[in-house]
Amino acid sequence: MLEITSVNNEKIKDTVKLQQKKYRNEKGLFLLEGHKPIFEAYGSKINILNVYTTKKNLEKFDFIKDRIVIVNDAVLEKLSTTASVCEAVAVAQQRLTSIEEIKNKKRLVLIENIKDAGNLGTLLRSAAAFNIDAVILSGETIDLYNPKVVRSAVGALFKIPVINADLNEAKKVFNSHNFIATVVNHKDVVNPETIDYTKPFVIMLGSEADGLTQNAIEMSDIKTTIPIQKNTESLNLSVAGAIMFYITTKKTV
Amino acid sequence: MLEITSVNNEKIKDTVKLQQKKYRNEKGLFLLEGHKPIFEAYGSKINILNVYTTKKNLEKFDFIKDRIVIVNDAVLEKLSTTASVCEAVAVAQQRLTSIEEIKNKKRLVLIENIKDAGNLGTLLRSAAAFNIDAVILSGETIDLYNPKVVRSAVGALFKIPVINADLNEAKKVFNSHNFIATVVNHKDVVNPETIDYTKPFVIMLGSEADGLTQNAIEMSDIKTTIPIQKNTESLNLSVAGAIMFYITTKKTV
Repeated sequence: MLEITSVNNEKIKDTVKLQQKKYRNEKGLFLLEGHKPIFEAYGSKINILNVYTTKKNLEKFDFIKDRIVIVNDAVLEKLSTTASVCEAVAVAQQRLTSIEEIKNKKRLVLIENIKDAGNLGTLLRSAAAFNIDAVILSGETIDLYNPKVVRSAVGALFKIPVINADLNEAKKVFNSHNFIATVVNHKDVVNPETIDYTKPFVIMLGSEADGLTQNAIEMSDIKTTIPIQKNTESLNLSVAGAIMFYITTKKTV
Repeated sequence: MLEITSVNNEKIKDTVKLQQKKYRNEKGLFLLEGHKPIFEAYGSKINILNVYTTKKNLEKFDFIKDRIVIVNDAVLEKLSTTASVCEAVAVAQQRLTSIEEIKNKKRLVLIENIKDAGNLGTLLRSAAAFNIDAVILSGETIDLYNPKVVRSAVGALFKIPVINADLNEAKKVFNSHNFIATVVNHKDVVNPETIDYTKPFVIMLGSEADGLTQNAIEMSDIKTTIPIQKNTESLNLSVAGAIMFYITTKKTV
């Protein structure tokens, strides 16, 4: 079993680079931190290239013994992106899904320009919980393989196909779907409970600060808003998304 | 107008101490960061003692001119708890509500042992949006006036009464309310859509890692769980809470 004890080792330095989006995308790789994400990725047939762990945690990674590189605490701390160091960091291959592969899916979510890693992770987790078939990332949305997204998605990353596509492409491929825009202030909104979710749909969610772009709202077939008390702040984005997903399941699951 | 340009000024040092729970509770004070929280707190008649801001932002705080202390960027940075320095930091008086003051309220939420500031803030924001009357913090729940809670609550902190009380006290005061335990794995659960929310209720939410305590589950009148797909992770706590609050509004608002 390979053992590395120096933070200046080239293999370690290369791995640390994967904390940055640029290098992740260049290499088509990403980082998994902690036993649970690694175990779940393995179970979901994500290709795991290396697992960096310390001697005392070796046993936990018996299921993937042949990929282990033993390191010391200093190296593990260097590889880790969280304040509290976890028991292992793994390097895995990104799974790229094409729009073609999801074109027969009926229950879709399109996320536009979302900046907050925690929000994207939580949305993926809720989407998996409420039986969404696939998620489309559009515009300037944060990188799916950002370590914080991976953490807050808690395994949902591997359970649900996620693709990158722009609005026009999505509209073309899913031309018989209802595009449902989730908006805050708009005159033509319907109550989300009145929409027929047995028909194929694409629920669209916009950025934390600005909501959906004008373009997205204009191309939508239905505009909806979750009714809330007057004079209160709008809902947190991942909360609004989860409530929408929840509502869709009541009529279809 | 008082002007302070040294980070070593005693008044500044005292204010920085309010970043810590111990000093906040000793003094009964807390910090507000940024124009919007300060403006909203002012509108909600929170007693604001001082507003520390720089000369270039003076105009924005015209509504509270007599409390302004002019500082430079270095001092403001010292006072601020966020990475990106905001335009002002204010010191305000905590608003303490007693259980007596909320005893006639019908739509209540009890939060037990929640550790994550973002979760508590988001729960308060959702509670205000879905017309919850008051929130009870129980057990080892994070401090309400933690700067991150104040930030993620986005003003909800001032719109909804929040009290500290233990489970037994709450059960005694609200003895005719339905105590509804939100649980994940339990054999006697009902679907949350089947509960009558026109009767007074206390929705109970437990910690991120462990859910409600055994004690809380045993004292509940109703156990409920939001139906999700098999083989997926449980919902994020603030998502589960928001969906519960949403469901209660459909039959009462």
